[in-house]
Amino acid sequence: MTTYSLDVEASIAELRAQVAELHNELVRNNLVVWTGGNVSGRVPGADLFVIKPSGVVYDELSPENMILCDLDGDVIPGTPGSERSPSSDTAAHAYVYRNMPWVGGVVHTHSTYATAWAARGEEIPCVITAMADEFGGPIPIGPFAIIGDDSIGRGIVDTLSGHRSRAVLMQNHGPFTIGVSARDAVKAAVMVEDVARTVHLAREAGSLIPIPQEAIDRLYDRYQNVYGQGEDERR
Amino acid sequence: MTTYSLDVEASIAELRAQVAELHNELVRNNLVVWTGGNVSGRVPGADLFVIKPSGVVYDELSPENMILCDLDGDVIPGTPGSERSPSSDTAAHAYVYRNMPWVGGVVHTHSTYATAWAARGEEIPCVITAMADEFGGPIPIGPFAIIGDDSIGRGIVDTLSGHRSRAVLMQNHGPFTIGVSARDAVKAAVMVEDVARTVHLAREAGSLIPIPQEAIDRLYDRYQNVYGQGEDERR
Amino acid sequence: MTTYSLDVEASIAELRAQVAELHNELVRNNLVVWTGGNVSGRVPGADLFVIKPSGVVYDELSPENMILCDLDGDVIPGTPGSERSPSSDTAAHAYVYRNMPWVGGVVHTHSTYATAWAARGEEIPCVITAMADEFGGPIPIGPFAIIGDDSIGRGIVDTLSGHRSRAVLMQNHGPFTIGVSARDAVKAAVMVEDVARTVHLAREAGSLIPIPQEAIDRLYDRYQNVYGQGEDERR
Amino acid sequence: MTTYSLDVEASIAELRAQVAELHNELVRNNLVVWTGGNVSGRVPGADLFVIKPSGVVYDELSPENMILCDLDGDVIPGTPGSERSPSSDTAAHAYVYRNMPWVGGVVHTHSTYATAWAARGEEIPCVITAMADEFGGPIPIGPFAIIGDDSIGRGIVDTLSGHRSRAVLMQNHGPFTIGVSARDAVKAAVMVEDVARTVHLAREAGSLIPIPQEAIDRLYDRYQNVYGQGEDERR
Repeated sequence: MTTYSLDVEASIAELRAQVAELHNELVRNNLVVWTGGNVSGRVPGADLFVIKPSGVVYDELSPENMILCDLDGDVIPGTPGSERSPSSDTAAHAYVYRNMPWVGGVVHTHSTYATAWAARGEEIPCVITAMADEFGGPIPIGPFAIIGDDSIGRGIVDTLSGHRSRAVLMQNHGPFTIGVSARDAVKAAVMVEDVARTVHLAREAGSLIPIPQEAIDRLYDRYQNVYGQGEDERR
Repeated sequence: MTTYSLDVEASIAELRAQVAELHNELVRNNLVVWTGGNVSGRVPGADLFVIKPSGVVYDELSPENMILCDLDGDVIPGTPGSERSPSSDTAAHAYVYRNMPWVGGVVHTHSTYATAWAARGEEIPCVITAMADEFGGPIPIGPFAIIGDDSIGRGIVDTLSGHRSRAVLMQNHGPFTIGVSARDAVKAAVMVEDVARTVHLAREAGSLIPIPQEAIDRLYDRYQNVYGQGEDERR
Repeated sequence: MTTYSLDVEASIAELRAQVAELHNELVRNNLVVWTGGNVSGRVPGADLFVIKPSGVVYDELSPENMILCDLDGDVIPGTPGSERSPSSDTAAHAYVYRNMPWVGGVVHTHSTYATAWAARGEEIPCVITAMADEFGGPIPIGPFAIIGDDSIGRGIVDTLSGHRSRAVLMQNHGPFTIGVSARDAVKAAVMVEDVARTVHLAREAGSLIPIPQEAIDRLYDRYQNVYGQGEDERR
Repeated sequence: MTTYSLDVEASIAELRAQVAELHNELVRNNLVVWTGGNVSGRVPGADLFVIKPSGVVYDELSPENMILCDLDGDVIPGTPGSERSPSSDTAAHAYVYRNMPWVGGVVHTHSTYATAWAARGEEIPCVITAMADEFGGPIPIGPFAIIGDDSIGRGIVDTLSGHRSRAVLMQNHGPFTIGVSARDAVKAAVMVEDVARTVHLAREAGSLIPIPQEAIDRLYDRYQNVYGQGEDERR
């Protein structure tokens, strides 16, 4: 049985509870149906992350059945939940953690409006101030990629590296979001669906008014640095 | 009063509880209003199935008022619930069980987006990976058929026999779904509405990007054989 | 203080509880926001009906604050709730009860999709079988009429007299539904929004397939006479 | 530590509870996601108002963490909640209270349909009677303005001064609503989203029928003076 330092064990225990609980936000915000969608969080100070098991309904998620993986996406044997398979998107999550050291959380859903943009391979233009605040510009499209190798993870990392957006719409697939923490990535998943829906509806009724780039820059800068009660809120 | 072997009686009791409970998923996923929609499940090892009573509100469904029928759709006299009429769609469910031996569950709803495609008699194209996973291609349209003889059941069986999809959109009517179990058919009912909504929204805003057939095949094959925690999850 | 025979008093008490409770169905089915929408029910064997008070939020409705009115829409003094104003639509409900003796319940909402059809003054075509079952054909449009005299009530009665539909979309205003009981009128309010939404979505994506009149007639006839557990279910 | 007369302290305590509670209506009516949206209320008889803290989730709002501000939008030191930052929209709320003495409550959301109209900079035409009742005509568009000075507050005041509407759609941003009380402003926020959705859907399917101005005037006049149980209901 694998063991870690007391600090790391404490972090894992806390993260198991957080990640299990955060799945409720996917349900509450209508981002998922049945067993679709998954949240993961990186263990601070270790090359490990915690992720949802595959094909388990949301009502049955608990700290104990979250699954601990290393950054290759392999389940750590002998840990709680390790008798089950992790989310089928585990390889994509692992690729992100390996290649984006600042990322502390990853979320994937098939939320309706975001996936509708993805089915057309069309980025969401930045025409509402809440979107400038949160994403600092358009939500980009990632490549078409299917499960089986690193192509989904690579598509996420290639698209989001150096981009302000914490959300990418993988073509014909759906949104992946990243954040400094699992909670921050969940917030991005909630917000990307919200802006995908609002901009979809806005555009189907007429022409959108663009926001000047300079205003987008100011809004993004302020929101990232001033909004809320300080840095703790994204953790 | 009709009696069965202890094994069959135990299966019936378990199925009554499952089928009653599964109706909650129709409500929770906003697939039904008022008393519309119905779930049935085949009794393992017997030519029997359990189905919802007709015109009863969801809050009042219980194991005891589920109705036991034979494969002609006739209520088994003297069993719990047999004093009431079964769902008005019972003949269609019975036809499916008679003609598709692998089917263990059938669901019918008038869920909004799936029924909208049905009112145009238009199949749903396979443009999102979740749809390739779950249905292996487009969701087909079944014929226009009305209650009164076997034409609805025959339409379902003729359309779905040899088809990857476990869902058919009966023209001007709504979706019927089948599965290896009642739970599996309910999952298909949830997923068909989800993809009907997403593809509807995607297409109203522009051109859809098709998924190559080879990718659809690979996704379907993997999902049917690898996803989840093994075969028990569809039961 | 007005008094009635013991039978009528018992009917009033039962109806107060029913009408108060039925407002929950408007909320549960997302047909109303804030204090909009109202349900009334006729007292069997008396020229009286029970209706919601004006401008009271749904959480505060109870049997005691429902208001008893005569068929001119005047509040019966000295009865529970009579210190408050009845729904501002009371005159329209009263007009319906005076002129359609078979009607036992009336419901009014501003439910979203039904009101959208009303804002265009466009009847809903009968293209789904559930609509043929429930309404026997299209949902008609009533005249533009505003509060202040009998013009709303007259518009409802003129449109629905001799019509199969129990729902009318008053132009620029919203749906009114009638039924043999308050519960039956609430069912019609739920169903008219459901079909308004489904047909709206169906049509925005392409051409609708009509249902042959003969099939509509057969569906309507069967549903009115065979569906459910017998006549008690509409009470 | 700042202190006030007993009367003002009692008003503040009551308002803290009201404003905290009213945020639940934003959630219940699906007007907000995550921490977006805010309600404030003016303290009767004092140059003070109570507002939501910034970036705090709805489940954690309580009377104690509401924040007391003066009409310049500065937090009153030493009062409950004063250790936290108030809503990032506090300056806009303060500007409204300074310049519109009759206003007792202000609400801001990014509710979906209202924000969609705002992204096109298009006012909502008055084509349903509920909108004539509540707003007395179209919902106007306010200027594009971003956080950082008084431009949002000024845009609200300039647009709504002398206008019947209690709601303004700030371009590319979202709705702000005002009222005689916090509750009245919340009602306006609920109703503006409801009419934004209904008119959006109505218009996407065809031509809207206008309501004659004379009828709008009569509806507005009646609703403001007759509807409900008297003036207390807006408090």
